[in-house]
Amino acid sequence: MNPQLDELKSRLREISALQNAAALLNWDQLTIMPPGGAEANGYQQSVLARIATEKSIDPALGKLIGDLLPYAETLPADSDDACLIRMAKYDFDKMIHVPPEFVGRAYEQIARTYQVWTEARPENNYAKVMPELEKNLELSRELASYYPNVEHVADPLIEDSDPGMKAAELQRLFAELRAELVPIVKAITSQPLADDACLKQHFPADQQLALGKRAAAAIGYDFNRGRMDLSPHPFTTRFSIGDVRITTRINENDLGESLFSVIHESGHALYEQGVNPALEGLPLARGASSGVHESQSRTWENIVGRSLPFWMHFYPELKANFPGKFDTVSLETFYRAINKVEPSLVRTESDEVTYNLHIMIRFDLELAMLEGKLALRDLPEAWNERYRSDLGITPPDDRMGCMQDVHWFGGFVGGGFQGYTLGNIMSAQFMESALKIHPEIPEEIAAGRFDVLRGWLTEKIYSQGRKFFPTELVRRVTGKDLEIAPYMRYLKNKYGALYEL
Amino acid sequence: MNPQLDELKSRLREISALQNAAALLNWDQLTIMPPGGAEANGYQQSVLARIATEKSIDPALGKLIGDLLPYAETLPADSDDACLIRMAKYDFDKMIHVPPEFVGRAYEQIARTYQVWTEARPENNYAKVMPELEKNLELSRELASYYPNVEHVADPLIEDSDPGMKAAELQRLFAELRAELVPIVKAITSQPLADDACLKQHFPADQQLALGKRAAAAIGYDFNRGRMDLSPHPFTTRFSIGDVRITTRINENDLGESLFSVIHESGHALYEQGVNPALEGLPLARGASSGVHESQSRTWENIVGRSLPFWMHFYPELKANFPGKFDTVSLETFYRAINKVEPSLVRTESDEVTYNLHIMIRFDLELAMLEGKLALRDLPEAWNERYRSDLGITPPDDRMGCMQDVHWFGGFVGGGFQGYTLGNIMSAQFMESALKIHPEIPEEIAAGRFDVLRGWLTEKIYSQGRKFFPTELVRRVTGKDLEIAPYMRYLKNKYGALYEL
Repeated sequence: MNPQLDELKSRLREISALQNAAALLNWDQLTIMPPGGAEANGYQQSVLARIATEKSIDPALGKLIGDLLPYAETLPADSDDACLIRMAKYDFDKMIHVPPEFVGRAYEQIARTYQVWTEARPENNYAKVMPELEKNLELSRELASYYPNVEHVADPLIEDSDPGMKAAELQRLFAELRAELVPIVKAITSQPLADDACLKQHFPADQQLALGKRAAAAIGYDFNRGRMDLSPHPFTTRFSIGDVRITTRINENDLGESLFSVIHESGHALYEQGVNPALEGLPLARGASSGVHESQSRTWENIVGRSLPFWMHFYPELKANFPGKFDTVSLETFYRAINKVEPSLVRTESDEVTYNLHIMIRFDLELAMLEGKLALRDLPEAWNERYRSDLGITPPDDRMGCMQDVHWFGGFVGGGFQGYTLGNIMSAQFMESALKIHPEIPEEIAAGRFDVLRGWLTEKIYSQGRKFFPTELVRRVTGKDLEIAPYMRYLKNKYGALYEL
Repeated sequence: MNPQLDELKSRLREISALQNAAALLNWDQLTIMPPGGAEANGYQQSVLARIATEKSIDPALGKLIGDLLPYAETLPADSDDACLIRMAKYDFDKMIHVPPEFVGRAYEQIARTYQVWTEARPENNYAKVMPELEKNLELSRELASYYPNVEHVADPLIEDSDPGMKAAELQRLFAELRAELVPIVKAITSQPLADDACLKQHFPADQQLALGKRAAAAIGYDFNRGRMDLSPHPFTTRFSIGDVRITTRINENDLGESLFSVIHESGHALYEQGVNPALEGLPLARGASSGVHESQSRTWENIVGRSLPFWMHFYPELKANFPGKFDTVSLETFYRAINKVEPSLVRTESDEVTYNLHIMIRFDLELAMLEGKLALRDLPEAWNERYRSDLGITPPDDRMGCMQDVHWFGGFVGGGFQGYTLGNIMSAQFMESALKIHPEIPEEIAAGRFDVLRGWLTEKIYSQGRKFFPTELVRRVTGKDLEIAPYMRYLKNKYGALYEL
């Protein structure tokens, strides 16, 4: 027993409780809150966030962590307590750089920009939101200015989502990926489009929800420790390891949207539900980073959920769920439909192959904005130009163009996108390691059994929570640094069987 | 502009935000939370409550209030700001007496007792919960010990729910009420029971919910500023004036349970939704007391919702909602059914006439326990004896006897019951005043219009929030001190038309 360690845990648990309570307010706002509750809910979230921040930068907490560092050195490096003290130090050191006054000011401006974006986007009125976006951009630069020894102005923003990653390294990694991806996209798009008419029939909402819940439960999402609700944009949130909630939205004329989004969010949720209960309430009781989180949602959505073995098992269930709708649709036709590759304008609806091109466009543009090389008045044309050159299509308006994603308007400019592509890369690297140990995984999945894969992921990744930085986690799990080769092998293997590459 | 007043408001808004966020956690726990979330949710509630308490007894807050008292004297006594400063002083003075250490200890013990009660009650095992109840009782006495000049050990507990009320005064008031009630109950119960078979048919849950929502909306509950969900025990909660939620439960074999409970909770909600928006976020933005709150739920449930004019309007709608079920049931039969008087064992299911006898039994027993005149081992028999003498029936077991209500097991012993009867008394006194100014109210209700009554209640009571203490509010609204005469006139008038009295 170390009384200082107990006090550290007690302080960190209190901070987490405030953050988790704020997360419930946020969930409520995005799902079931009556419209009249909006203003007070926003204020309550800001109060909890502010108190959590005050407690996070309390000098007494900093002293406690400092006092505990020598003790941490005496523990096994991968023990829960050593990792906790290390991560507490990391969080504290990061937070004390930012003045609380700045946090409040940024929160208010971002809320305002978001509000203007919700009006400007349906009006296709980029000019209306541009002055507000300019302020978000300035705040993003200001945030970076608080940190010492910053190599790239985007680095602190990237660090917030994907610790240990830097703009320069990501630019190298993404350039490598892009060089490999573009020829594959070209090869596929020169061939006839897959026929996905079977997915565009009318599917009643309640039947889609029932199927989504069955799919989520099948892969292991525990409804005793979570629930599924409707929201305009699907998301996963957690209030504890015992309460991890997912949401979805239904398009009655497209089966794929909700179904794969439910499997995607279930992947995020499996990660959070799988954290070691011993870490409950501590800042280690969550995913390691944006990228690692996305690796799990993409593993379950794409590597599992869009695989042939999965549908060898699940297709009869889908057919039974929608009587008559798939009588004349072969498994192969269905499999090709859910893996149709087609350059499109909307990131969230894009296929597995072109998806990373969307991300890299955004990543490059936000770096250029932060560097001051791209003026905001030139953003729409720069966006459209990249869609023309990378995907061969041109957005008809800014709604489908540079105003498409909420990220820059509802948060800082920078740090919000790289995690998606990092997740895709990691997902394949993790899966290759899993398959080395458990080559039976595809057969298991074809038999409707997900325990071997989920068990391996839980042991290696989920149960560890946020004990390790992503780069270290990748090395621990795969024995290697992050690399794109497994991801390219995965894509070439899967799409090589569907198309001539 | 008074900068100290601004700081006071800012501090009080922060405390309210913490309390309202805790209320959302509590609502979630009682309605839709998955079972796995229970432990963390309870911890998060306790953290928010503790921080709110710390901020409520901050000496800097006390000094600010002290500094502002002379300023309050310069304002009109019924101005929002004068009332705010006065109420802030009242709250602060009350809270500083109680050591935070005690609050935490009491919270933990009460949670434990509640947990044991949830197990002991279905087992009909009073012995199992008695030692825990003893601890709740000791904590209740300890709480009283922190206050100076306490006349009766129950007074601080009563003060918490019904400021300005004392045990001695309530004993006098209740004795007077009992002397008038008992003969009426005797007169009614010597006559044949009303036939309420029409309420005991099978009513599908979704149809009941639809009718309940229509009834709530009809009397003025605003679903844009609230929502209705299911919970094991119906309740109303508020997170802001713009978000006041109600819950219900459905018994498919009894129409009355959910319907009247929805109208009851809607009455509570109309009060909270009707608070002047200028008070939002301040400790004045809620009902004045337990008794005044109950007066509004009972006004809408009983004085309105079980009145003949209400059903002259609403009965056709009910008939249409349940096709075929009421074809042969006359309005008079239905009206008699919903006003059936019958001594029963369960408080929450009892009729308007016998209801207060249930309350007074509990009130007398809790005073006796607090005074040390009733030992807990004798509670079951004391309970049963009072049911025999007051209502002429004997509980078959402690499940239906002294373990029936959550109050003593899930809170302090004392202060939890008097508000129900105070509410009944107030409801009639308020309504008499309303009818003096607006004698057209019954006709309006018979035409399905509730604006006149709701408008008067909103102006006189709802919009005032917690600006005035209940005794002062009663005087301001009715021109008189609280008295039982209007309530007895109401009962004699209504039940005199249904029975020979």
